[in-house]
Amino acid sequence: MKKRIFSGMRPTGKLHLGHLVGALGNWVRLQDSYDCFYMVADWHAFMSEYEKPRGMAENSIEMVRDFVAAGIDPKKCVIFVQSQVPEHLELAMAFGCMTPLGWVERCPTYKEQLREIVGRDLTTYGFLGYPVLQAADIALYKASAVPVGVDQLPHLELTREIIRRFNGLYKKEVFPEPEPLLTKTAKLLGLDNRKMSKSYSNFIALSDSPEEIKKKVSQMITDPDRQKLADKGHPDICGVFSYFSTFGDDRIKSETRAWCEGAIIGCTECKKRLADILIDNLAPIRERRKKLSDAEIKDILTDGAKRAREVASKTMNEVKKLASFAA
Amino acid sequence: MKKRIFSGMRPTGKLHLGHLVGALGNWVRLQDSYDCFYMVADWHAFMSEYEKPRGMAENSIEMVRDFVAAGIDPKKCVIFVQSQVPEHLELAMAFGCMTPLGWVERCPTYKEQLREIVGRDLTTYGFLGYPVLQAADIALYKASAVPVGVDQLPHLELTREIIRRFNGLYKKEVFPEPEPLLTKTAKLLGLDNRKMSKSYSNFIALSDSPEEIKKKVSQMITDPDRQKLADKGHPDICGVFSYFSTFGDDRIKSETRAWCEGAIIGCTECKKRLADILIDNLAPIRERRKKLSDAEIKDILTDGAKRAREVASKTMNEVKKLASFAA
Repeated sequence: MKKRIFSGMRPTGKLHLGHLVGALGNWVRLQDSYDCFYMVADWHAFMSEYEKPRGMAENSIEMVRDFVAAGIDPKKCVIFVQSQVPEHLELAMAFGCMTPLGWVERCPTYKEQLREIVGRDLTTYGFLGYPVLQAADIALYKASAVPVGVDQLPHLELTREIIRRFNGLYKKEVFPEPEPLLTKTAKLLGLDNRKMSKSYSNFIALSDSPEEIKKKVSQMITDPDRQKLADKGHPDICGVFSYFSTFGDDRIKSETRAWCEGAIIGCTECKKRLADILIDNLAPIRERRKKLSDAEIKDILTDGAKRAREVASKTMNEVKKLASFAA
Repeated sequence: MKKRIFSGMRPTGKLHLGHLVGALGNWVRLQDSYDCFYMVADWHAFMSEYEKPRGMAENSIEMVRDFVAAGIDPKKCVIFVQSQVPEHLELAMAFGCMTPLGWVERCPTYKEQLREIVGRDLTTYGFLGYPVLQAADIALYKASAVPVGVDQLPHLELTREIIRRFNGLYKKEVFPEPEPLLTKTAKLLGLDNRKMSKSYSNFIALSDSPEEIKKKVSQMITDPDRQKLADKGHPDICGVFSYFSTFGDDRIKSETRAWCEGAIIGCTECKKRLADILIDNLAPIRERRKKLSDAEIKDILTDGAKRAREVASKTMNEVKKLASFAA
């Protein structure tokens, strides 16, 4: 039997290249080797967006359209929306009742989010419980591994602690302690060399048209010391070249490096070449995207919620029985 | 249309005279004038019992058997178990996300519970959210009033505050602010003149047999200054007389007072008379109790959960739509 993994993403709407190179591409690669549960984390989004949660439903649909267009197979994976599986909140409540306040107050996930999400009032009761809900998300499916980057390792530790506490109190290995599935994912900078992010408007969306891609790439920042075509360039400090490293094959990479360092082609020409590569890379996603109607996405999510609930309700029945709830 | 009220009780198992004189008798009286939702608050119980939640299911059944035996009509009222209506946790999550941490940390309910419930580790994330769940319990049914005693007024205030915050954020009167329904309920002391409580073993259960009642009443504490039959008694400081005040009619009360103050009958005789009155009072409850099978109680709760969910799911659909969750 395949090992089960769990991962989730907040519904931020249409995804960009940063998502593809980071989590999403990884999700696609993992789907053949693992039994995958991929969740649209809308309760987590609500925690920060509660003041003006406009567009969460549309964003969920658009994001899942990108999931599927990028190659996640809804037959192989369970793709679902968190709020459509109420068992997440049941297990979060059970976990919350046995989680010492100090654990959540000191949690690195919590502190990091408080820092990262700006312009929101996050000093709420619900947001403090963010890592408890995260633990429940994973445990509900008894996932034995969670794909994470090295920087996220501390986040997983609290989940493991809460699970140990539950198993310890009820003297039964109800939940496996999820192991980190360390995966090599590249970090892709935004068009302006900052982190690629919707809020910086420095991204290329998976759904961008060839024209949009050409325009956006043409505005990218290159080696600032290369003013004229005859100046030799420094690919290692060039934002455009970093994209070649991620999307080009070895031949293209060494060719581009040689052309840049030898001042053989200029930045404008180089950007055109990058745009063509990105357009080619995204073409299949863009094509699949166009063919995926809202109704199809909704069907995928309805089916996903059903399959997720089959597992989730089994887990909660077990928990409720152990905790002596009335049947 | 009748006004809707909501109230709940933790599943503590068989109820005693203190419950009957306090909340339960009141619930029975209110059922003709109001549309009543009466809840077995098992998630609230779990918050304090999570370390050893044994017997919660049985306690729920026994308690509801007492509800019905005491005269609560499951046709008139919706009697249900909280954990069987997952919408409670959904609304609690939504409310939690918009409840400032300071509100719950400073909540009188929370502080009182921390003091009252001893021998439990309650410094958990879940328990801190106790008043948020309480607010969701009431709001889920859009109850416009909550039967409370004067001492519970501050508890209701936080519920009203959270509801105002929700209505304010979403610019819609989704939830009414529940009014306190101040009801005159007597306080009944335990057999040893302390508060009647299961943990003090100083109670008379609604299900006690006539023999048990006689035995328990015979051990009650009377006026300590009355040593011999010829000593005149002081009914106002006598635990037994306080029961006559609650369960006897005016004739019996004045008769008993005269007999005690005039040293006409002794305490033993007086206790026999009280036991008879209590046995008579509890006879119909005891009889109805015997006829209520576990299966009948479970049917009542299945029907109750169904009726509760009809209202609860409507409320949550409204909330999720307002908050832009994917349908």
